[in-house]
Amino acid sequence: MIRVGIVGGTGYTGSELIRLLLAHPKVELTVLTSRGEAGRMASDVFSSLQGVCDLVFCEPSLEVLGECDVVFFATPHGVAMNMAAKLLSQGIKIIDLGADFRLQSTDEFAKWYAMEHTSTDVLAQAVYGLTEVMRDKIKTASVVANPGCYPTTALLGLKPIIDTQNTSDTPLIDSKIIIDAKSGVSGAGRQAKVSLGFGQVSENFLAYGVLGHRHTPEIMQGVHQILGSRYRHSIRFVPHLVPMSRGMLSTIHIGLTSEGQQRDWHRIFEQTYREEYFIDVLPKGMFPETQSVRASNRLKIAAHQEEDVLTVIVVQDNLVKGASGQAIQNMNVMFGLDERLGIDGIPVTP
Amino acid sequence: MIRVGIVGGTGYTGSELIRLLLAHPKVELTVLTSRGEAGRMASDVFSSLQGVCDLVFCEPSLEVLGECDVVFFATPHGVAMNMAAKLLSQGIKIIDLGADFRLQSTDEFAKWYAMEHTSTDVLAQAVYGLTEVMRDKIKTASVVANPGCYPTTALLGLKPIIDTQNTSDTPLIDSKIIIDAKSGVSGAGRQAKVSLGFGQVSENFLAYGVLGHRHTPEIMQGVHQILGSRYRHSIRFVPHLVPMSRGMLSTIHIGLTSEGQQRDWHRIFEQTYREEYFIDVLPKGMFPETQSVRASNRLKIAAHQEEDVLTVIVVQDNLVKGASGQAIQNMNVMFGLDERLGIDGIPVTP
Amino acid sequence: MIRVGIVGGTGYTGSELIRLLLAHPKVELTVLTSRGEAGRMASDVFSSLQGVCDLVFCEPSLEVLGECDVVFFATPHGVAMNMAAKLLSQGIKIIDLGADFRLQSTDEFAKWYAMEHTSTDVLAQAVYGLTEVMRDKIKTASVVANPGCYPTTALLGLKPIIDTQNTSDTPLIDSKIIIDAKSGVSGAGRQAKVSLGFGQVSENFLAYGVLGHRHTPEIMQGVHQILGSRYRHSIRFVPHLVPMSRGMLSTIHIGLTSEGQQRDWHRIFEQTYREEYFIDVLPKGMFPETQSVRASNRLKIAAHQEEDVLTVIVVQDNLVKGASGQAIQNMNVMFGLDERLGIDGIPVTP
Amino acid sequence: MIRVGIVGGTGYTGSELIRLLLAHPKVELTVLTSRGEAGRMASDVFSSLQGVCDLVFCEPSLEVLGECDVVFFATPHGVAMNMAAKLLSQGIKIIDLGADFRLQSTDEFAKWYAMEHTSTDVLAQAVYGLTEVMRDKIKTASVVANPGCYPTTALLGLKPIIDTQNTSDTPLIDSKIIIDAKSGVSGAGRQAKVSLGFGQVSENFLAYGVLGHRHTPEIMQGVHQILGSRYRHSIRFVPHLVPMSRGMLSTIHIGLTSEGQQRDWHRIFEQTYREEYFIDVLPKGMFPETQSVRASNRLKIAAHQEEDVLTVIVVQDNLVKGASGQAIQNMNVMFGLDERLGIDGIPVTP
Repeated sequence: MIRVGIVGGTGYTGSELIRLLLAHPKVELTVLTSRGEAGRMASDVFSSLQGVCDLVFCEPSLEVLGECDVVFFATPHGVAMNMAAKLLSQGIKIIDLGADFRLQSTDEFAKWYAMEHTSTDVLAQAVYGLTEVMRDKIKTASVVANPGCYPTTALLGLKPIIDTQNTSDTPLIDSKIIIDAKSGVSGAGRQAKVSLGFGQVSENFLAYGVLGHRHTPEIMQGVHQILGSRYRHSIRFVPHLVPMSRGMLSTIHIGLTSEGQQRDWHRIFEQTYREEYFIDVLPKGMFPETQSVRASNRLKIAAHQEEDVLTVIVVQDNLVKGASGQAIQNMNVMFGLDERLGIDGIPVTP
Repeated sequence: MIRVGIVGGTGYTGSELIRLLLAHPKVELTVLTSRGEAGRMASDVFSSLQGVCDLVFCEPSLEVLGECDVVFFATPHGVAMNMAAKLLSQGIKIIDLGADFRLQSTDEFAKWYAMEHTSTDVLAQAVYGLTEVMRDKIKTASVVANPGCYPTTALLGLKPIIDTQNTSDTPLIDSKIIIDAKSGVSGAGRQAKVSLGFGQVSENFLAYGVLGHRHTPEIMQGVHQILGSRYRHSIRFVPHLVPMSRGMLSTIHIGLTSEGQQRDWHRIFEQTYREEYFIDVLPKGMFPETQSVRASNRLKIAAHQEEDVLTVIVVQDNLVKGASGQAIQNMNVMFGLDERLGIDGIPVTP
Repeated sequence: MIRVGIVGGTGYTGSELIRLLLAHPKVELTVLTSRGEAGRMASDVFSSLQGVCDLVFCEPSLEVLGECDVVFFATPHGVAMNMAAKLLSQGIKIIDLGADFRLQSTDEFAKWYAMEHTSTDVLAQAVYGLTEVMRDKIKTASVVANPGCYPTTALLGLKPIIDTQNTSDTPLIDSKIIIDAKSGVSGAGRQAKVSLGFGQVSENFLAYGVLGHRHTPEIMQGVHQILGSRYRHSIRFVPHLVPMSRGMLSTIHIGLTSEGQQRDWHRIFEQTYREEYFIDVLPKGMFPETQSVRASNRLKIAAHQEEDVLTVIVVQDNLVKGASGQAIQNMNVMFGLDERLGIDGIPVTP
Repeated sequence: MIRVGIVGGTGYTGSELIRLLLAHPKVELTVLTSRGEAGRMASDVFSSLQGVCDLVFCEPSLEVLGECDVVFFATPHGVAMNMAAKLLSQGIKIIDLGADFRLQSTDEFAKWYAMEHTSTDVLAQAVYGLTEVMRDKIKTASVVANPGCYPTTALLGLKPIIDTQNTSDTPLIDSKIIIDAKSGVSGAGRQAKVSLGFGQVSENFLAYGVLGHRHTPEIMQGVHQILGSRYRHSIRFVPHLVPMSRGMLSTIHIGLTSEGQQRDWHRIFEQTYREEYFIDVLPKGMFPETQSVRASNRLKIAAHQEEDVLTVIVVQDNLVKGASGQAIQNMNVMFGLDERLGIDGIPVTP
């Protein structure tokens, strides 16, 4: 059994990790930490855990975490980078669901997260945990930077396009990539804010982060370094808030050159993901809805090509494939397990 | 492996059976029937099943169902009673999630369901599938009448009280029982009706069935026959519609006699359900919320005693413990399996 | 024109006062105060006011409020009682939407609100602003204590019953009154709390305040002093939280004596409210829904009598008839205006 | 007083017309027709009208409608075009909220609505009722084709751009226009469909009409004929369904040429709509939310320019400015009234 610790277990990604890991057949959930709730039963904080979890939240410390084989960080940025080196030196693997090890550029990190990076050595060895793209490197990684929820949809939606472009002598697509993304409110975390209150969110829809969202540089890095685009792209990323708890849909619009219009993009998508268990490319003419993946690790994609624009639609559960589920998928890869273990639940609907 | 058929797989209880049974380790889901969708892939009707289920809906017939060890009916009333006798004669067990075998009085059935009962022989051998109360009889049953969602909360909420009253020489409670119940809209089924539309249900709350709801005679029968109350009670049952998809909360108010006020009802509830895996009696002063049991088979109860009124609050997921989960719990009992198999999922929140 | 000030304009009842008073033909909205938002345009705090309101929030002070003819307090308890005497001495009328002047017993106030009452002189002259019951006293009042939202539904739902009981020589009803109430989340105010977040409230339903809610003593006082019941009643009041922003429905259950069962309660309700513009008693067999009164000052009642229980269902918009609308109704009465002015909007649906 | 008839009063746009017109100071609501509900009180169909409307739905006929000065059609396509000529011949003005007179090309109409146009004479005189653009022609119109909800946001969001482009010698923008639009579910009408049920819509988000939506040709016609673009544009219009009842937000993405990047687009938007009462251009860096215009006729716009893409965000209430409110705005213009009469309500929030 893999002994697992979770640092920061009281947010939405933390509680989703608990839900999934409690049912994982090869995991023993060992340590839950929370500064704010230290000393309380997890089942007192989350009534959904009554009768199924008798762990108690404790203060995060190297001692208690030292018992673990792997530690998940479900914390705000700045926490993981201060504990990572010491855990690694004890042979403990790390999966960070926060942002500390996502951006390889420390300048970009400092710009978007308003703090200096304090752990550049660990950063240098961190692998970006977009499982379907980085699987081979994740197998041997000690530190995985779990992708942001928006970048997961954006990059998996773009991979077939960038790959195809990279093998073509002529431009197939415009340099501008429009990512019009929509997320349920759990993406903002479990915070006490008027703006996240039911009265503000319900029966409301809005764009936010138009002036700049932290996931923009992550998508930019993803396109050019993770996907390795040979062409330079500009990214227009506009996230919107949907009055629902879970679920994310990204609509990606890319202009096609006249040569690009000759390709059968739907087939390219199908071929790219033919072997991927968690990714469904829908039949031509069908489009996915977020409910179809709720509480599951599946991600669904449709590619619709019409005249000079290719529109790609990607859905996932932002808390599962967009966060805790993909983190466990990465853990499975890191430990040589069947990638599906513990995250093979069927979507819950309605 | 138990070979399972589902008649009427396109409603909410049918699709919930599919979701749960696909993950049940001792079940092979073999037959799905639907008159309306015969010939279509289940995954075309429910996009949540894409990639996880390759069954095709077929017409319900004795031939195809003949391959099964057990058949679940997730159909409107009147369907199961017309197929039950023939399936039983082939040695196939039946679990009816509809109403055909719930009311032992055929007069009451005719009155509330506006049709004559056509299968009184089967009715005579049907066991009322309130698992925690009827477990011993379910073990040897060939036909189980799965309880209605409201009666499940009402009867499990009343059992400790009626049991206690039955062993007392003097009245502990008033004869009037007030059941003020609230349900998410999936309880009304997956129907095409303006009144179930998002625009009507969202940001709305209402009482319905005040003039008479089919679950009233079922609760009445449950109190007097299933729980075996020695005293005659009148039941005031008022269901309300909550703008949410899943979840049910019943608030039961019972007047206490002066002797009844001497009892420690919270302790009585704890003792009654001490051994029950799926039932949590909350600590004194805590009250359950529907989200804490979402998508799970758990049922939570709080009992609050103040002066001359005892208020009991019961929550469940109406589609799981209130329907498909309890049906599988009954199947596990009927086949001698661990009662928790396939329905031990942790609640999904948020 | 009546010059109006609002103290505490940034909560839900405050912003609803602004919405309604801006459109009131006899009102000039003059002063908006807010400690937290002083100096900001109201239209910056509430984007719904862009283009329709150019007022700026200021600190609450006797100087600025001195310009007003009437001041509404939409503040937490404890604020109004510290400013009331001085405003009154300047001839300014006061309508308090908070709790400071609702309970005539200062002991009860201290017990439920955890502070001593500092303005007993003003309390002594305060009139309880349940308009349909107290209209004559409100006409000449200088201080009106606007009722809580739950008590408004409870007392208007009980008035026909208590009145009838008071004129009967024999008991018609049991002493126990069960009030099973349900409210949209705006009733909890515009606060930054995890428990009011969309993720906690949506797809969830729960009882709260079971151990004691501040509106219980207000309802108790209402039954015995405002409605003047000659009989002593016990009140079991259990509020529940509905996943919607606006709307309140109270289900009142009262046992009937055999004599009480002889009365035609529906007709009694019709007669009681025949002349009331804002109160609709629905035809027999019809039951109200909260959407039918959304954003309006109307209150709808159904009375259903069956065997030995009378069930009364009352709906209102908790922010309008339950708070700001009734406050303006009281202002209209105090200033001798047509009671309907400014609060005659048609319900908004869907 | 203007005598008004509404044909098709039982859908969402019909009931919204009733709500608004009942409060219009210069209107006498005279005739409500509905084939399905003929003979029933409007207040029986819509409980929100209890106490405020005593009209009875009748069959649509030229006789009863003959009493009116203006008739609104809130009907499916194909109804208005069969009655329009006869009403016009009696001197009755027509405002069609349906699609019959929107597309000037009868080929396009036949293609998208699957029926031949039967009233080309009336079509020839119909004025497209996008009030802020077509005001002068509406003043003298006898027939107004009220715009679709999506085209209203798209065309008002594009007008400043197309106008500017039209006065420039060099291209400022790319030929491709991306309109990524999101609507509350009331836009689909008050229909009995499983896909519009609460269980399907709540906690769900999806794109629809990706393969072709009837509003695409209307937007195309709007850009080239109504706004009169001198350049040819391709339109990629992708609508999405938001789990809310009311509200629409359109995000428009347009590539800028290097010359286009030199312009101050925010200022251009401000100047374009400086005089328009119902249109608010938000200050730089602010972005609108649908709740801020709920139940009102206001439309809010933000224009955000960054590098080579201009992103315009437009919100409205789809039932008011997107349908019934704009229809009344057009009526006010046609009858020479103050344009704001009856549609000047303040947004309702929360």
